[in-house]
Amino acid sequence: MGIAGDAFGPQLPAGTRELKQERAVRTRERILAAAAQAFAAKGYPAVTILDVAEAAGMTKGAVYFHYENKDALALAVTDLFYRRIGELADAVEELDLSPIGSVAELLLRTATAFRDETVLQAGARLQLERQLIGVRLPLPFQGYTELITSWLARDRETGARDELPPPDTLATVLVSAFFGAQHISWVLDDRADLVERTTALVRTIIPSAEEDIQLCPSAPRRC
Amino acid sequence: MGIAGDAFGPQLPAGTRELKQERAVRTRERILAAAAQAFAAKGYPAVTILDVAEAAGMTKGAVYFHYENKDALALAVTDLFYRRIGELADAVEELDLSPIGSVAELLLRTATAFRDETVLQAGARLQLERQLIGVRLPLPFQGYTELITSWLARDRETGARDELPPPDTLATVLVSAFFGAQHISWVLDDRADLVERTTALVRTIIPSAEEDIQLCPSAPRRC
Repeated sequence: MGIAGDAFGPQLPAGTRELKQERAVRTRERILAAAAQAFAAKGYPAVTILDVAEAAGMTKGAVYFHYENKDALALAVTDLFYRRIGELADAVEELDLSPIGSVAELLLRTATAFRDETVLQAGARLQLERQLIGVRLPLPFQGYTELITSWLARDRETGARDELPPPDTLATVLVSAFFGAQHISWVLDDRADLVERTTALVRTIIPSAEEDIQLCPSAPRRC
Repeated sequence: MGIAGDAFGPQLPAGTRELKQERAVRTRERILAAAAQAFAAKGYPAVTILDVAEAAGMTKGAVYFHYENKDALALAVTDLFYRRIGELADAVEELDLSPIGSVAELLLRTATAFRDETVLQAGARLQLERQLIGVRLPLPFQGYTELITSWLARDRETGARDELPPPDTLATVLVSAFFGAQHISWVLDDRADLVERTTALVRTIIPSAEEDIQLCPSAPRRC
């Protein structure tokens, strides 16, 4: 840190380029953390590059060096949002639960993340404001619905639980109910009750999940 | 119409005041229809009073005579939205269906109205943008959830269907799933598939409703 200074050229000592790249990565992380905070709190239309720069403790010029404009920041924060959802799904897959248990566990972990993590809160708000943003964000809901459909379809393959609706129907209803809970909890309660709302929808729509995962352990994330 | 001209004073002939009031009501209706169209299509931040005036075929001054500013228009359109939801509920109550059948019928009629009626589309979008609006809109979701809870509680009183979750839990899950379906259908399909999505959630969450109402008649509103 600081070894390379701000000089840049073919005569740089070996390793300096890597150091500069590392520093640039950390700077971008700081900018994106500040942008996520601002988008989550104020909404896209009200946020300025100056807000983001001040919150990140740098100049507007430094922000513009890494991100061309506010749209580029919105796109980068949205990208982080989808990567985080992917991480949650990967972590649930590693638990090797039953298909229906995996779906319930994913919904509860996603609820906890929406309650606690700024990047998810920012991503949700940016998606709501997508028509006010000058760049096309990825279409929401589809990847998450397809993932849940594929997990539920494994249950079908093993012949279990034939009383459930077809995987794509059930996945669509679960994602609707989860998105609705997430949004309503945000508007009415700043997401404080989101995990409880998600527990209730899991119990109501896929009650058999309770055979596979505990819905009310003492862990703070649930009941 | 036109009899009173634009004169106004104590010497007006009997009935003129009523005619002027009637005309003012019709003018406000025209303004609100234009405002609802604009809010639904462009969103609150992008709409100007000039847009509304032009769509209503009148001057900006005429709009300002009836509504102080854009916030007043947003509030008046939101008021129309909640009145329309109230009318849908009243019409379902008159059908005298079972409690669970009433809830399913209300959700399907609300879905149809969101698909087809500009005032509902505008109300939904204004509620999404509530934090960008300079006036406090009524809190959403609560009245609709309480109404459905009260209908479901009647079922509990008669001792029927004890396998369902408590009325307030089931109502909350149904409203979450319906709001989620409404929003996702808007984003992905301009609400063209909202009635199908709502049919799917009714079948998945309250399948016994199908004993009380037909979910797939030939009427265009459903399947």
